[in-house]
Amino acid sequence: MLAKALLPELWTEILVPVCAVVGIVFSLFQWYVVSCVKLTADRSDPSSTEDGTNGHGDYLIEEEEGVNDQSVVAKCAEIQTAISEGATSFLFTEYKYVGVFMVFFAAIIFLFLGSVEGFSTKSQPCTYEKTRTCKPALATAVFSTISFVLGAVTSVLSGFLGMKIATYANARTTLEARRGVGKAFIVAFRSGAVMGFLLAANGLLVLYITINLFKIYYGDDWEGLFESITGYGLGGSSMALFGRVGGGIYTKAADVGADLVGKVERNIPEDDPRNPAVIADNVGDNVGDIAGMGSDLFGSYAESSCAALVVASISSFGNNHDFTAMLFPLLISSMGILVCLITTLFATDISEIKAVKEIEPALKNQLIISTVIMTVGIALVSWIGLPSSFTIFNFGTQKVVKNWELFLCVAVGLWAGLIIGFVTEYYTSNAYSPVQDVADSCRTGAATNVIFGLALGYKSVIIPIFAIAVSIFVSFSFAAMYGVAVAALGMLSTIATGLAIDAYGPISDNAGGIAEMAGMSHRIRERTDALDAAGNTTAAIGKGFAIGSAALVSLALFGAFVSRAGIQTVDVLTPKVVIGLLVGAMLPYWFSAMTMKSVGSAALKMVEEVRRQFNTIPGLMEGTAKPDYATCVKISTDASIKEMIPPGCLVMLTPLIVGFFFGVETLSGVLAGSLISGVQIAIFASNTGGAWDNAKKYIEAGASEHARSLGPKGSEPHKAAVIGDTIGDPLKDTSGPSLNILIKLMAVESLVFAPFFATHGGFLFRIFS
Amino acid sequence: MLAKALLPELWTEILVPVCAVVGIVFSLFQWYVVSCVKLTADRSDPSSTEDGTNGHGDYLIEEEEGVNDQSVVAKCAEIQTAISEGATSFLFTEYKYVGVFMVFFAAIIFLFLGSVEGFSTKSQPCTYEKTRTCKPALATAVFSTISFVLGAVTSVLSGFLGMKIATYANARTTLEARRGVGKAFIVAFRSGAVMGFLLAANGLLVLYITINLFKIYYGDDWEGLFESITGYGLGGSSMALFGRVGGGIYTKAADVGADLVGKVERNIPEDDPRNPAVIADNVGDNVGDIAGMGSDLFGSYAESSCAALVVASISSFGNNHDFTAMLFPLLISSMGILVCLITTLFATDISEIKAVKEIEPALKNQLIISTVIMTVGIALVSWIGLPSSFTIFNFGTQKVVKNWELFLCVAVGLWAGLIIGFVTEYYTSNAYSPVQDVADSCRTGAATNVIFGLALGYKSVIIPIFAIAVSIFVSFSFAAMYGVAVAALGMLSTIATGLAIDAYGPISDNAGGIAEMAGMSHRIRERTDALDAAGNTTAAIGKGFAIGSAALVSLALFGAFVSRAGIQTVDVLTPKVVIGLLVGAMLPYWFSAMTMKSVGSAALKMVEEVRRQFNTIPGLMEGTAKPDYATCVKISTDASIKEMIPPGCLVMLTPLIVGFFFGVETLSGVLAGSLISGVQIAIFASNTGGAWDNAKKYIEAGASEHARSLGPKGSEPHKAAVIGDTIGDPLKDTSGPSLNILIKLMAVESLVFAPFFATHGGFLFRIFS
Repeated sequence: MLAKALLPELWTEILVPVCAVVGIVFSLFQWYVVSCVKLTADRSDPSSTEDGTNGHGDYLIEEEEGVNDQSVVAKCAEIQTAISEGATSFLFTEYKYVGVFMVFFAAIIFLFLGSVEGFSTKSQPCTYEKTRTCKPALATAVFSTISFVLGAVTSVLSGFLGMKIATYANARTTLEARRGVGKAFIVAFRSGAVMGFLLAANGLLVLYITINLFKIYYGDDWEGLFESITGYGLGGSSMALFGRVGGGIYTKAADVGADLVGKVERNIPEDDPRNPAVIADNVGDNVGDIAGMGSDLFGSYAESSCAALVVASISSFGNNHDFTAMLFPLLISSMGILVCLITTLFATDISEIKAVKEIEPALKNQLIISTVIMTVGIALVSWIGLPSSFTIFNFGTQKVVKNWELFLCVAVGLWAGLIIGFVTEYYTSNAYSPVQDVADSCRTGAATNVIFGLALGYKSVIIPIFAIAVSIFVSFSFAAMYGVAVAALGMLSTIATGLAIDAYGPISDNAGGIAEMAGMSHRIRERTDALDAAGNTTAAIGKGFAIGSAALVSLALFGAFVSRAGIQTVDVLTPKVVIGLLVGAMLPYWFSAMTMKSVGSAALKMVEEVRRQFNTIPGLMEGTAKPDYATCVKISTDASIKEMIPPGCLVMLTPLIVGFFFGVETLSGVLAGSLISGVQIAIFASNTGGAWDNAKKYIEAGASEHARSLGPKGSEPHKAAVIGDTIGDPLKDTSGPSLNILIKLMAVESLVFAPFFATHGGFLFRIFS
Repeated sequence: MLAKALLPELWTEILVPVCAVVGIVFSLFQWYVVSCVKLTADRSDPSSTEDGTNGHGDYLIEEEEGVNDQSVVAKCAEIQTAISEGATSFLFTEYKYVGVFMVFFAAIIFLFLGSVEGFSTKSQPCTYEKTRTCKPALATAVFSTISFVLGAVTSVLSGFLGMKIATYANARTTLEARRGVGKAFIVAFRSGAVMGFLLAANGLLVLYITINLFKIYYGDDWEGLFESITGYGLGGSSMALFGRVGGGIYTKAADVGADLVGKVERNIPEDDPRNPAVIADNVGDNVGDIAGMGSDLFGSYAESSCAALVVASISSFGNNHDFTAMLFPLLISSMGILVCLITTLFATDISEIKAVKEIEPALKNQLIISTVIMTVGIALVSWIGLPSSFTIFNFGTQKVVKNWELFLCVAVGLWAGLIIGFVTEYYTSNAYSPVQDVADSCRTGAATNVIFGLALGYKSVIIPIFAIAVSIFVSFSFAAMYGVAVAALGMLSTIATGLAIDAYGPISDNAGGIAEMAGMSHRIRERTDALDAAGNTTAAIGKGFAIGSAALVSLALFGAFVSRAGIQTVDVLTPKVVIGLLVGAMLPYWFSAMTMKSVGSAALKMVEEVRRQFNTIPGLMEGTAKPDYATCVKISTDASIKEMIPPGCLVMLTPLIVGFFFGVETLSGVLAGSLISGVQIAIFASNTGGAWDNAKKYIEAGASEHARSLGPKGSEPHKAAVIGDTIGDPLKDTSGPSLNILIKLMAVESLVFAPFFATHGGFLFRIFS
């Protein structure tokens, strides 16, 4: 019998929910601060009239410029409402389909898992310890279904709230931009933090409560308990399918559609209120980058926790009933919330942004600060939350692990995330030579721009893959699949900060759009543009994190699946595995082809509608008539839902078909193949797209001698850069990030259905032999 | 003791060389026929003056048109000489580096393999049968080095001769085009056949002789004998590195460089004699598509034969000393030569091309006819060349295999090749909807063209991967790695026809260029364009074959490596293998980034030179002064050799570094990872590029209502299509096909060095544990 963790069980039971609640309270506090920015042009506001500085002691731009048009505030509010309504309408339409999908898939989970022992209500021998008796497979079916629904609902709720605050904050950011770039930055960042903390804390709290409730039934059958909990990961991840894929199609269909008619055909600027698709475009930023990214990272978080828990339950933690050690993954996340809370204060209270060039460093510092503090936090949690020595299940055997080894596993994941973030920044920010070289290649036209962009994307894969490989090697060598799972959790432990930075981007983007549409001063637009440019790079960093963690999570889930399916080795030297690998490595291509085609088709529908409005609404180009924004929002919504069906089916059906017809060996090959191939394409796609976007911005901004030699807007090199940017849009915002979902969802689905495949799988091979 | 093959050993010893000699004689005969087209404008030629029809009974276009300018013939001859000299100069420059590389690498092989047993001259226990005594490791070192040199020399020789005939035939094709498209087709096709048969027969003959000579020393130590023979594959394949990568960079640097200045800046047509890079461009077609493709396929052929032989030597064939069964791979190739010979007659003698639209079907028929006849041929060889039942080494155990099972292995590879060919045709020929859709997307500009092209490329991966997966599954299940190796041989068995079709393309392309440069009638150019268009599609088909066979070959080599390195399983569930897989899957991206950058840099140098000539040579644009072609040829040559060093080092050093520092498990992961990832990118890259090329040609040709609505040349959609074509150039002709080399060469190198890695590998892990 090995020693137990230092932290008593009671303390664990108190600390985890307390940290989660602290996170939620902090998030609500940030929301309150944001809401203090009033979105009414109330001239009777005493503070506003008293000293003419909107009660803050700063002069507004209007006042500096001698303009005093309070109607722009009303206009901002109006535009915000339109965006918010558009976003809500998309979400509610999506939820209808989500609802149908959830009911349908919950039924499948119940039926498939229930059928494992023929829906028998009798207790059965445990899977790993045959001598003990465990709860019936029917219980696993019921509780997996419940946790699936809980995971899905938590994801939906977090996404919805994130989107609400984002569409609540965008106009407020615009208005604060009148008072200075620092003020606007804080509003955008705080709003992002609301999203980040809500999601991290909600996810933790629901998971914690679910475990404790399920425990009432399962008692000391921890194997069954945590097997059922994996449904939570599946639920979270399948919502990410809607968020990432559906949202990704929405945002790019609106964006590309708006650009193709507006910029190219009608020659009107971006975010011009005359463009009927402009609201849909702004809605898209929220749908794709807020709700989509949130659900993606929530999925990763839920899945890595579940993967760690299910492995732990059959390790010494589970066998010894050491609840504190068992909840180590949740303790890491709890610590993460506290660390991110402190980190946030650095951006909002401790330091202040005074100039445009301080924005990007401030955001980068968030990453560094959170990583450094979290390293200490992990050490603390590993010290008090784990026995000094314990065993971890390792494909049939138990491997002895020390607590400091597990600390290294978590830490290597955390720091790999930072490295991936910085490499992504290097390859996508126009402050460095790679993007500048791409911009330079626009001299010889769009073709060289594309060739250089592709080469940049290919090259940007190298270091992240080494970073992921090193973290896998360290964590895998120390603690098998449990190590990989907690490495993923380490990378995701600063999720609140990561999401805050990430959500900040689209909020600033929207703020710029609102400034343009409300016809505000050019100087405001310049400030929001600066916020937005920093957001572009952080968005790429966020995507890097998402991909890196997805890779680790998928591997951990894959390991858990293999264990549960009772496979001892996944040997490349067997035909079943090798063809699985080959076909699995092909799936990301198939999936990308589908998502790119989806964007194309949806954008085409948008183009037609925008053209129709320009042709049939008199006075639209002159600005005397208002376009019909709602129809464009509806078209994006409907098209994105419809177009996500084929790629969605590919993801959801592949594990079921392969597992049922070809068996677990081939399925494990498919999972491994899609993982190792998908992560590369995902990094490539998101970095290439980011680089093209920023190459264009580099030329537009003209901040250096070199950049000015390529510009200005409308020059031949700039036109070439715009072509690259348009190509990159679906790559970086739809097909690339969607691949995370492909690799994670297939893995978690396989894990949940592992008992079924182990019993009924390999149908084809069985009838032939 | 199992039964022996029906065919007596003596007959095998006679049949194999006889078939090889037949192939060589047939090839020389074709060369003779081609040489009958006279490249002299000799008015005193009696046949020419007698009836005014050049002695063939057909009227020449000049005569029909009433032009009788015999000076064009002289001009054609002059241009041909320039191209031929350029090509030869490139090859000889390359050979200098090849020579240095060969000496250096031969020394490495000798030293590394010799060090396995400390350069001892004493006999040692065999690797697989420890009770028997085998020749010393030093002998393996010596003979591996010799066979390496032989493989390299054979490849170099075949490439050189292929290029000679191609640059001998191009102007003759142009001249024959005056007499009709059918005549021109036959000249081009016969010349391709020279290349195909020479290569297939030479490869077979040298391999056969080498085996027999080595046998004198090795006696009944077949294990050692065929281990040494693997050097032949390595030699062939490392020359392919120069051919494919160096040649690929050459051809695209010249092409892109010529286009960027000529078409874009100076607005002069393609192949205009005023363009200083025009000769380099035409040389490039020969260098890349003739010598490069030839060395690639020769490498595949040599490697798959070696992989099959090395596995066979430790199976019952080797253990029972059944020489006929042992030489089964060579019997397949011998049969292939005969089958291709018959097939060729269908194109050159049995049917005749009368109209442009018959060209593509005639080429496709070649593929179908050769596949159908070869299926019968394989059945015959399997029946007489194999015992009815035998055992095959299967990672430590012996697996019983029937001869009809092995027939199925070879046949499934053969037919998978045909399927890959047809799918490639479907996705890259503008006769079908995929390319037409890409062309249509040019309406909305270059961005949509690129997005649709990428999506097409991604999609085109699906069916070929399934075809490869099925052939792997069938052949692997029936006969382990021997099955996979002979499946690859099956796919390559019709190599003579495949190469004939493939080499036909650049010859026609050159013929068109010569017609343009010689200022011949527009109608001649139309005929050569039609030949060229068919050649574009067949080039894509050829690349599909090359990739498919490379995948099978690499897997077979991988299996042989694993066996030789003494690994029992390559388990994805071990950290060493999983990081190997991940990093291996990244290598194709790294490699592609390098090759694409190489093309960019080399093209840039060409652009500068062409600009310089236009600016400094007075009268060049007016056509009164001649450009300095030789300097452009030299720039392409030097740049391509210099630029191939980094990617070349990546390929050659990765197995050595990984094997030595990280050991055979990680290396096996790297090989498997790069195989399953590389094959997808290779298919994607070559099909996307082919589709863009043909989308452009579709608009230019304007053969349908739809096509005309997008054209003509110079319209906005056409400009967008040209951008796509330029992007596709390095993808389809450099980075895509080069990936074949990456995956094959790393595998064969690992196999050759396997004894060294097994003894001295894993340095890093050993010092840490």
